Amino acid sequence: MAADSNGPAHRQDQPPPSKTIAALVFPGFELLDYFGPLEMFGALPERYRILVVAERDEAVRSTQGPRVMADQSLAACDDAELLWIPGGIGTREAVANPALLDWLRERSATTDTVASVCTGSGLLAAAGILDGRRATSNKRAFPWARSQGASVEWIPKARWVRDGRFWTSAGVAAGIDMALAIIADQCGDETAAETADLTEYAWHRDADWDPFAEKAGLL
Amino acid sequence: MAADSNGPAHRQDQPPPSKTIAALVFPGFELLDYFGPLEMFGALPERYRILVVAERDEAVRSTQGPRVMADQSLAACDDAELLWIPGGIGTREAVANPALLDWLRERSATTDTVASVCTGSGLLAAAGILDGRRATSNKRAFPWARSQGASVEWIPKARWVRDGRFWTSAGVAAGIDMALAIIADQCGDETAAETADLTEYAWHRDADWDPFAEKAGLL
Repeated sequence: MAADSNGPAHRQDQPPPSKTIAALVFPGFELLDYFGPLEMFGALPERYRILVVAERDEAVRSTQGPRVMADQSLAACDDAELLWIPGGIGTREAVANPALLDWLRERSATTDTVASVCTGSGLLAAAGILDGRRATSNKRAFPWARSQGASVEWIPKARWVRDGRFWTSAGVAAGIDMALAIIADQCGDETAAETADLTEYAWHRDADWDPFAEKAGLL
Repeated sequence: MAADSNGPAHRQDQPPPSKTIAALVFPGFELLDYFGPLEMFGALPERYRILVVAERDEAVRSTQGPRVMADQSLAACDDAELLWIPGGIGTREAVANPALLDWLRERSATTDTVASVCTGSGLLAAAGILDGRRATSNKRAFPWARSQGASVEWIPKARWVRDGRFWTSAGVAAGIDMALAIIADQCGDETAAETADLTEYAWHRDADWDPFAEKAGLL
């Protein structure tokens, strides 16, 4: 465990990172969709290496204002085992970007794990990647997500939905719970629980827990 | 509300932002300490404007890897109503940076609200800003934080602690709960609750809720 703790440190004598996360950003991405889950994966540097990937190798502004620096452009992006797709108001423009949709299709065809947070599932749906699969999305933006994929089985009430190697979460903060579920799946439940404790996060472990669907009038 | 929703939008005909947040970053800051709270403030663009402030006007790497671009250097930093200080492993070096401590002392003397997440309170304590005040910190790094301020009244069991205009939270995810409490204080409880719902976040409203203090052996 790394992160800011006095817990056990295993940073020396470690094998190289076992999985690379290609974490996409685009203008108008949502801060917490992106950095909440990356906090959790980033607490396990012996298991995950994070690459910030953007259309161009430059700073990308979030919906909330702060800018993140890309580590790699789409064209130069290394192979990755995990593809991470945030949502945000910028998804509305991103779905009209053929180069980005092509990249998503190409990458998701071979990546072990494809995960989206919030309206990121609308972006995956627009690329056809979720056709025939079960998926969820942001609860207030659900009609928009649904409009991006007529062949997707959209699940209104879910904190997250797993369909094979495809994971989609509800809005914003839900991505943290899904990230911990992915860590539990890939590294074991104990490692996920320890990561939650390390970051003082009250993990919602139940994929069906979703008080926000009803609040948003989806039920 | 902005953010990614179909909720009510009030982005037109708004008064200018009423409060500027100077949000400090330093090498080795913790991603969620920083971006979790900024998600919440950033959902209210009519009330808060976020400035990423760093020692120099350049990209700053987090503990977890991703880099954020500074909007302003410390020297050029505009006046701000709210000072936001994250924690992270980089606080261990930051406390030995006299220019940074000077800036913190100078800025916190006049800023309406001074808030830290996680080991950020160790940084404020090292600058003497918390002397004679009540404060909390990351639960696993509590001994380190405590060592930075002998004249601080350290509270081991707390999600966050408010002492006048000084707010300090427990580790990492706790900053989100404190940010919502600050929003409730400054914009009203309804606005804070709506921000939590918008971001599908289960807000812990009780400042004394803290299961992590016991887990970390502090009780």
